[in-house]
Amino acid sequence: MSTRAPARIRRLAIIGCGLMGGSAALALKRAEHVGEVVGYSRNPATRELALSLGVIDQAAPDLEQAVQGADVVILATPVGALASTMVAIAPHLAADAVITDVGSTKSDVVRHAQAHLGMHVMRFVPAHPIAGKEHAGVEHADADLYENRKVILTTLPQNTLGAIATVEALWRICGADVVTMSPQDHDTVFAAVSHLPHLLAFSYINGLANQAQIDQFLALAGPGFRDFTRIAGANPDMWRDVFGSNRNAIQSQLQHFKQALQRFETALDAGDSATLEAFVQRSRDLRAPWTLNAIIPSRDDLTQQ
Amino acid sequence: MSTRAPARIRRLAIIGCGLMGGSAALALKRAEHVGEVVGYSRNPATRELALSLGVIDQAAPDLEQAVQGADVVILATPVGALASTMVAIAPHLAADAVITDVGSTKSDVVRHAQAHLGMHVMRFVPAHPIAGKEHAGVEHADADLYENRKVILTTLPQNTLGAIATVEALWRICGADVVTMSPQDHDTVFAAVSHLPHLLAFSYINGLANQAQIDQFLALAGPGFRDFTRIAGANPDMWRDVFGSNRNAIQSQLQHFKQALQRFETALDAGDSATLEAFVQRSRDLRAPWTLNAIIPSRDDLTQQ
Repeated sequence: MSTRAPARIRRLAIIGCGLMGGSAALALKRAEHVGEVVGYSRNPATRELALSLGVIDQAAPDLEQAVQGADVVILATPVGALASTMVAIAPHLAADAVITDVGSTKSDVVRHAQAHLGMHVMRFVPAHPIAGKEHAGVEHADADLYENRKVILTTLPQNTLGAIATVEALWRICGADVVTMSPQDHDTVFAAVSHLPHLLAFSYINGLANQAQIDQFLALAGPGFRDFTRIAGANPDMWRDVFGSNRNAIQSQLQHFKQALQRFETALDAGDSATLEAFVQRSRDLRAPWTLNAIIPSRDDLTQQ
Repeated sequence: MSTRAPARIRRLAIIGCGLMGGSAALALKRAEHVGEVVGYSRNPATRELALSLGVIDQAAPDLEQAVQGADVVILATPVGALASTMVAIAPHLAADAVITDVGSTKSDVVRHAQAHLGMHVMRFVPAHPIAGKEHAGVEHADADLYENRKVILTTLPQNTLGAIATVEALWRICGADVVTMSPQDHDTVFAAVSHLPHLLAFSYINGLANQAQIDQFLALAGPGFRDFTRIAGANPDMWRDVFGSNRNAIQSQLQHFKQALQRFETALDAGDSATLEAFVQRSRDLRAPWTLNAIIPSRDDLTQQ
């Protein structure tokens, strides 16, 4: 913990002006932690919208102009576009530019960075903010999106201490609680707590959709269905990329699930009510006391400035 | 629809003073639709608590005294206790007593009623209120629990019109939107939209609990996990009974799920991103526009009184 205020960002480049990148820009502007924000989106209408909403100060016409002279770059495109984005920006990055991202998977992002960022990989500090909203898009960007949320940094062995400090400060100033872990551990954890639940929710809805009574099902579904399936309305582009990027860890989590499901089905078929009850009890014992953000983030280092 | 006010209940018996029965008693008292409420719970402490909270006006020491002289009886025990409860009350029911229940399964409840209620089955109108709370128990009983919720009646061919009218009025006065369907259709629909999601959430949590990193998983889980697993903290007694009572319909829904899951897994293993994206898109198309209670309940017959 340092009581020294982190250095202000002069010029921030947001690559992919959506909910995640836009929310970071708004939070950093509100904290007066950034001089100017340059934004790029492949779709010109999106970057013009970001400009008109005041999320960015300048809309760059291409990736080269977006990153030129930027001291910090946030890669906020879908995970599937990260590799080609890195190829395009690497020759134009300032020699001391610090880079971070917002991808939900990390091992593959690290591989891409090692393949495409050249010596800039020293200052690429991968990040996964555990935050989101039901609706994507820069029009939903919100300076409070990261407030009290966790951001996982999967720092690389070759990262400089200065780059890590810059990225850590950036996310803390957005209001987040920063946690560091390896890319492999990150991908195992998020396969377990996020990617598998999405896969199950998507499969569950597809299983219903295959039945003739689907309209009756939807008309009578209650609050349990609402909560269980909220994630089943998620973005297809993003999730196609996540399933591609983190396949091994997801396959492994799926096996754990299928083993538990098989035990349940065996007990159901046998009418083994003692086993069914024990199975539900174990679930309840684990889930009932759990709460989101049970660990209160420490922000002493910011409030003491 | 009738503009005539439904007849007031003189003496209401609540068998099983918990969240569901207690909330019905409070709603009917608030509407001044009931003279006195007699309550029975197997555990004497529970019925004394219900009495001290004003949920019931008299605590009956046994089932016989609970139902004696009652013109309406609500069976609100766990589904697994319904058969033995029916056996115990049948000889003591008033000749014109109207009976309803709050069970989450219906085919088995109807079988029990036909086996154990004798001629009283004419006035047994099975009900399933689609309502609940995170915490069970009479201390959470709430006169608003059924407000704008659906209550499914699975009326029997031998039901009298008077009994159906009494039970319909009772639930409408609790604030609910009453829907009628067959016990078999009810059980298929709720296997699909409630019992299967519970089974999947219980299995998912058991699959996590089997892994050494479970504490790390829980520490980093986010809002998606919170919503997807809310139902995994549900009551083991209740769910053991539901899985026993509605086994056939649940097994059938589980097969639909497993087929969809298998298609997903095949695409994942093959790295078939087009199929993965189409699968997520289909889920999103169905789930994203869905909202709870999209159909506004009509309560004209009550408001015109």
